[in-house]
Amino acid sequence: MKIKVGIVGGTGYTGVELLRLLAQHSTVEIVAITSRGDAGVAVSGMFPSLRGRVDLRFEDPASCNLKACDLVFFATPNGVAMQQAPALLDAGVRVIDLAADFRIRDVPVWEQWYGMPHASPEWVAQAVYGLPEINRAAIGEAQLVANPGCYPTAVQLGFLPLVEAGLVDLDHLIADAKSGVSGAGRKAEISSLFAEASDNFKAYGVPGHRHLPEIRQGLSRIAGAGVGLTFVPHLTPLIRGIHATLYARIKEAADFQSLYEKRFADEPFVDVLPAQSHPDTRSVRASNSCRIAVHLPQGGDTLVVLSVIDNLVKGAAGQAVQNMNIMFGLSEAEGLWQIPVLP
Amino acid sequence: MKIKVGIVGGTGYTGVELLRLLAQHSTVEIVAITSRGDAGVAVSGMFPSLRGRVDLRFEDPASCNLKACDLVFFATPNGVAMQQAPALLDAGVRVIDLAADFRIRDVPVWEQWYGMPHASPEWVAQAVYGLPEINRAAIGEAQLVANPGCYPTAVQLGFLPLVEAGLVDLDHLIADAKSGVSGAGRKAEISSLFAEASDNFKAYGVPGHRHLPEIRQGLSRIAGAGVGLTFVPHLTPLIRGIHATLYARIKEAADFQSLYEKRFADEPFVDVLPAQSHPDTRSVRASNSCRIAVHLPQGGDTLVVLSVIDNLVKGAAGQAVQNMNIMFGLSEAEGLWQIPVLP
Amino acid sequence: MKIKVGIVGGTGYTGVELLRLLAQHSTVEIVAITSRGDAGVAVSGMFPSLRGRVDLRFEDPASCNLKACDLVFFATPNGVAMQQAPALLDAGVRVIDLAADFRIRDVPVWEQWYGMPHASPEWVAQAVYGLPEINRAAIGEAQLVANPGCYPTAVQLGFLPLVEAGLVDLDHLIADAKSGVSGAGRKAEISSLFAEASDNFKAYGVPGHRHLPEIRQGLSRIAGAGVGLTFVPHLTPLIRGIHATLYARIKEAADFQSLYEKRFADEPFVDVLPAQSHPDTRSVRASNSCRIAVHLPQGGDTLVVLSVIDNLVKGAAGQAVQNMNIMFGLSEAEGLWQIPVLP
Amino acid sequence: MKIKVGIVGGTGYTGVELLRLLAQHSTVEIVAITSRGDAGVAVSGMFPSLRGRVDLRFEDPASCNLKACDLVFFATPNGVAMQQAPALLDAGVRVIDLAADFRIRDVPVWEQWYGMPHASPEWVAQAVYGLPEINRAAIGEAQLVANPGCYPTAVQLGFLPLVEAGLVDLDHLIADAKSGVSGAGRKAEISSLFAEASDNFKAYGVPGHRHLPEIRQGLSRIAGAGVGLTFVPHLTPLIRGIHATLYARIKEAADFQSLYEKRFADEPFVDVLPAQSHPDTRSVRASNSCRIAVHLPQGGDTLVVLSVIDNLVKGAAGQAVQNMNIMFGLSEAEGLWQIPVLP
Repeated sequence: MKIKVGIVGGTGYTGVELLRLLAQHSTVEIVAITSRGDAGVAVSGMFPSLRGRVDLRFEDPASCNLKACDLVFFATPNGVAMQQAPALLDAGVRVIDLAADFRIRDVPVWEQWYGMPHASPEWVAQAVYGLPEINRAAIGEAQLVANPGCYPTAVQLGFLPLVEAGLVDLDHLIADAKSGVSGAGRKAEISSLFAEASDNFKAYGVPGHRHLPEIRQGLSRIAGAGVGLTFVPHLTPLIRGIHATLYARIKEAADFQSLYEKRFADEPFVDVLPAQSHPDTRSVRASNSCRIAVHLPQGGDTLVVLSVIDNLVKGAAGQAVQNMNIMFGLSEAEGLWQIPVLP
Repeated sequence: MKIKVGIVGGTGYTGVELLRLLAQHSTVEIVAITSRGDAGVAVSGMFPSLRGRVDLRFEDPASCNLKACDLVFFATPNGVAMQQAPALLDAGVRVIDLAADFRIRDVPVWEQWYGMPHASPEWVAQAVYGLPEINRAAIGEAQLVANPGCYPTAVQLGFLPLVEAGLVDLDHLIADAKSGVSGAGRKAEISSLFAEASDNFKAYGVPGHRHLPEIRQGLSRIAGAGVGLTFVPHLTPLIRGIHATLYARIKEAADFQSLYEKRFADEPFVDVLPAQSHPDTRSVRASNSCRIAVHLPQGGDTLVVLSVIDNLVKGAAGQAVQNMNIMFGLSEAEGLWQIPVLP
Repeated sequence: MKIKVGIVGGTGYTGVELLRLLAQHSTVEIVAITSRGDAGVAVSGMFPSLRGRVDLRFEDPASCNLKACDLVFFATPNGVAMQQAPALLDAGVRVIDLAADFRIRDVPVWEQWYGMPHASPEWVAQAVYGLPEINRAAIGEAQLVANPGCYPTAVQLGFLPLVEAGLVDLDHLIADAKSGVSGAGRKAEISSLFAEASDNFKAYGVPGHRHLPEIRQGLSRIAGAGVGLTFVPHLTPLIRGIHATLYARIKEAADFQSLYEKRFADEPFVDVLPAQSHPDTRSVRASNSCRIAVHLPQGGDTLVVLSVIDNLVKGAAGQAVQNMNIMFGLSEAEGLWQIPVLP
Repeated sequence: MKIKVGIVGGTGYTGVELLRLLAQHSTVEIVAITSRGDAGVAVSGMFPSLRGRVDLRFEDPASCNLKACDLVFFATPNGVAMQQAPALLDAGVRVIDLAADFRIRDVPVWEQWYGMPHASPEWVAQAVYGLPEINRAAIGEAQLVANPGCYPTAVQLGFLPLVEAGLVDLDHLIADAKSGVSGAGRKAEISSLFAEASDNFKAYGVPGHRHLPEIRQGLSRIAGAGVGLTFVPHLTPLIRGIHATLYARIKEAADFQSLYEKRFADEPFVDVLPAQSHPDTRSVRASNSCRIAVHLPQGGDTLVVLSVIDNLVKGAAGQAVQNMNIMFGLSEAEGLWQIPVLP
C-alpha cells in the first residue's frame, strides 16, 4: 500500500524537487498538487524534466480534497501553512511544512523576524523540528513536522558534535555560510537574475537573517544553554549548494576528527571526510548527503568545520522525504539513494 | 545473476558517469576499473560523490584480469581501445568503446581525421554502431559496440525522421551545435579552464571537426545516399548539455510534427515536444533523454529542429548502459530511469 | 564646451552601461537622468560601480527639463520613446532611442510585431537607423537616431559584405544567434533567473522574434531586394555577449576573406580576424568592437560567418555613443576606446 | 617622455591584465614582453582582446635587452624574479615583482612556505612591500617593489583601521576569503577546469596557505606585535573577484564606521560604503577599487568587515601600476580610472 501524498504549492524549486524525489519513491502515490496561480496547468508543462514521469495537473487549492491524503507537504511561502495546515491536521492528516511557520518555538520571536502575527501558535507547540540527526524519535511520532531551513541544516549538523560535547566556547560561534541562488526560490526578483548573480559574490543580511534565530534555537537546545552566534550568509553563483564554514574556539584539546566520526557513524546522510579534506558542494549535488570536514589549522585554538549540503535536497525536499520515511516507518533512505551528479 | 563489468580508463568524465549509473544498476557488478596513472587510488578518493557507493580502487591495466568480465567498457582516449580491446574480444568478452576507434567504417577516413594508423581494422568491420534508435537489433547481437559521439547522437536523432522520410534537401543540411565544457573531457587544457570558458562563447573546429565524418556516415546510411552537411560546433558555458539546432530545406509540405511523433513513439529515451516548444538542456540534465522540437518558422521552407541531450549520459555513458542493456537482454531502461535534475 | 546629455530610463542595463561610457567621455556632461519608479534615488546607490564617478540622482520625468539638453538618450522599454521623444524633437533636441520604436520603417509591420499602435509614425519616417557602418553620413545629419537592436547589429555586420557584393543566395540566409542573459534586460522575470538560465541553453522565439523584421529590413535595404532569413535566437549562460553564426549558400567562388577585410578596413569598430579564426565573445567584452571570421568549410558551398559583439556595448549603449560622436562631429571612437576585459 | 617598461612572463592572467592597463596608460611605452615558451608569437594572437592595441611579439628572455627599461614587471611564477631581477636591479632598472619572491622578510619562513631556497636574500631586505595604503612613501623611493598577493590585499585593507587603532583582540582574527578562479592563474590544472570549478564551491588550503604568513607579517607590522590569524580561502565560480569576510572580537565600543571612513578618506582606491551595506565583487570588476563595509551584528562583540577587490587589478596588475605611478611621481590614478564593468 502506498502513502497518499499531497503537495501544496508545487511551482517553486522545493516543489519541483519534491516531485523529482517522490516520483522515484517506491511507496508513495502523489494524489494532488495545488497552485493558486497555475491551476489547470500540467505539471510537466511547467517542468519538462518531469515529462512522462508526473502526469498531474496543478489543482485549485479551493477545490482540492487534501483531507484524503495521508501526508501533505507545504512547499509554500512563509505564512501559508500556518493558515491552511490546521484544518488538515484537525482532520488527522499528517503535515510537513517546508517553510518556516512552525520552526521557531518562541512565537513572539517568530513574529518579530517574519513580520506577521502567527495564525496558529497552538500548533507551533506541537510541531517537531525535523532534523533527523537530532530528533529522529520525535519525528516518528509527529503529526506536524517543521522541516528545517537550508542554512540551519548545514550549520547545525556542522556544530552538532562540538556543542553536544561541550568542547568549545559557545558564546562566540561563527557561521560563514555560502548559498547557491536557488535558495532564494523561484521568484521573479532582480537580485536573483542571472545578470546580477552570475560572476558575482556578496554577503547579505549581515545585520540579521531569519535563519539566525532558528540556528540559535537549535544549538541552544543541544547545548542546554544559550549560545552566541555570528551568522553571515553569502550569495554565490551556484544553482544548488550550501557551504558552511564554521569557526569555534576550543576550550581544550581533543580528537575532533574522531568525535565527528563517532557522532555520525550511524547516520545514513552525514559523511565525515578523512582528516585534511575539503568537501566541495558538487560532491552532494542533487543528493541528500551532508559532507563534513574538521580542521584545527596551524596548531591554534580555532577549530574550522566545513559542512556542505544541497540546499534543495538535504536543505529542503530531501530532508522532507527523509522525515516522511521516518514518520511512516519506512527505510529512512527510501527514494533518497541517488548518487550525486558530478561533474 | 549479475553482469560482471570492467571499466578501462575510469578517471575521466565518461568514466565517473559510467560509475554513477552502473552503481545504481540492479543487475551489474563492477568488478574492476583500471587507470595507468592512478593505480591504487580509491575511486571515491578521486570522486567523493561516490563515497559509500563505489568501494573499488583503480587497478593497473597490466595486472588486471579483465578477461573474467562479461563486458568491458573502454572510457579511454581515442586510440586505446583499438590496441587493447582485440585481446578481450578474442577471449569472448563483449566490449563497448566510448571513444571513436570503431565508429568510422572507412578506415582511411578514420586515419585521416584521427591522425594515426588504425591498429585493428578487422574489428572495425565487425563493430556495431551503438545508436539504439537505428541499430537496436544489431546491437543485441554485437560483440563490439562503437558507442556514438555526443554531437553525432544529438544531430542524428534530430535529423533521423527527415532523412528516413526523404522530405528534405540532403545536400545542404546544417547542424549548428553547442556543447558544454565537459565534452572536452577531464584533461588539463588551458582552453577548458573556468577563467577561459566561463562567461564566454565561441565556435571551434569550423574548418573540420572529427564528428563530421561520423555524422555524415550515419546520415548517409539512413538515407541510402551521400549527404552534404555543414557542422559548426560551439563551446558554451555549461557543464553538461548539447543543443543541436538543425536546418534543412524541405522539398514538400508535410506534417513534420506528426512525422517526428510517430517515428519516436516507441523510443524510451526520445521525447518529441509539442509544437511550438523549445527544449532546454537542463530538461535532460543527468538523464538519458533526448528531447526534440520541430519548427517551420514564418511559413518558409527552412525546417528548424532543436535536439538536446546530456553529453555525458545519452551522449556517452548513458547510451553505453542502454547498449549494455540491449546486449544482455535486460529492460532497455534499467538503471537509466533517473529524472533530470532541474534546476 | 561639453555636450549636455540627458538619459530617460536609466535603471536598466543599457542605462547603467550608457552611464559607464558617458562618465568616461571627455566631451559629455550628463545633466539629468530620469526614472519614474526610482526618482530621488542616487544613481550610485543603485549601481555602486558608479560610486565616486556619477553624482546624479534619478529625477521624476514629469519635473525634469530635458529640453535644455543637446541630446537625450531613451533607454526605456519599447513604446516609451514614441510617446515622449516628439516633444523634445519639436523643441530641437536631438534624440537617440535605444529601444525599437523607430527602427522599422513600415509602421503596420512594427505594430504587428510590437503589439501596439504607433504613437508617432511621422517621426518613424524621419528617423535614421543608427548602424554607422552603413549609415554614417545620414547619422551625422540626423535629429532622431534609431539605435539598432543587439542581434540585428551582429547579424547585419556579419552579412553586410556578402549582401553588398551579391555573392550569396539571398532567399535562404540563416542566422543562428546566441545571446547572453543581459539581453533580456534588468527585468524581474522567472526565465532570466540565475537558477533558470545558468548551466542551461535553449532556443527561443523560433516561430518569430521581433528582431527578425529589423534584420530583414536592414539586409533588404543593402541588397536592394527582399531577402529570406531564418533567424533562431538562443539564450546562453553569459552575462554579456552575442555570437551570431551565419550561413549563406554562395553563388560563385570568391576571396571572401579579402572581401571582408576590404569592406571593414576603415571601420574603427569592426575587426576581421585572420582566416581560420574563431572569435570568442570575451574578446569584445565591455568594448564596442565587433569581431568577424569567415569560413568556407570542407570545400563546400555553404559559407559560415562568425560575428561577435558585446550586446550592451556595440549592441546598445556603445553604439549609441558612437552615433552621438558622429552626430556631434567628434572623433568616432571618443569615449569608446576601452580595451576588452579578458579574462 | 614616456616610461620605458618591460614585462617578464606575459602569458598569464596578470600579464594580460598588465597589458590591458598599460596599453591605456598615457605615459608608458611597453618596449618588450618576454615568454620562454611563446617567443615569436604575437601578443594579440594569444589575446585577441588586444588586437589593434598591442603590437608586440613575445621575445625570448635570453635575447631581450631589458636593461634598457626604466621599469620591469615580473609577472612570472614564484621563484623566477629572485633569479632574474638582481641583474636588472644591479644595472639600475627598477623592478616590480607580482609574484611572491620578495614579499616575506623572514627568508627561512619564505623558504618553508614556498619550498625552495631563496636565490637573492639580500634583495629581500631592500624590497618594499607594495601596499600603497600603508607604504606609500617607501614605495616612492623603492628600487624593488614586492607587489602584494591578492588575498593579502583584501584582508589587510579590511583589517587595517582596526589593527592600527588597537580596538580588537589581535590573537584571534579570522579571515574567511573567497576567490574567483583566475586567482589560480592561467595554468592547465584539472582543479581549475570549468567542469570542476563551475557550479561548485569549496574551501582549500585550510591547514595552511602561502598567503597566511604574508598577511600575518603585514598585520603584525601594523600592530607592532604578533597577531593570531585563522585564514580560510575558498574557490568560488567567479572569473574575477575576492570577497574577504573578516571577523574580530572588539575590546571596546567605538564608532567603527567613522573609523574606517576617516582612515581611507584620502585613499583614491579604497571606498568605505555607508553603514548596513554589502559590497558585491562585481562593483569593483575590472577596476582598481577596494570597497569595504563594516558591521557589528545584533549588538554583539564580533565585528564583521566585508572587503572586495578584483584579484587581477587591485590584487595584482592594477596595484602594480599604482605602485609604478608612485615610483615615478605620476598621478597615482593614472591609467587606473576605468569604471567597473557592471553587469
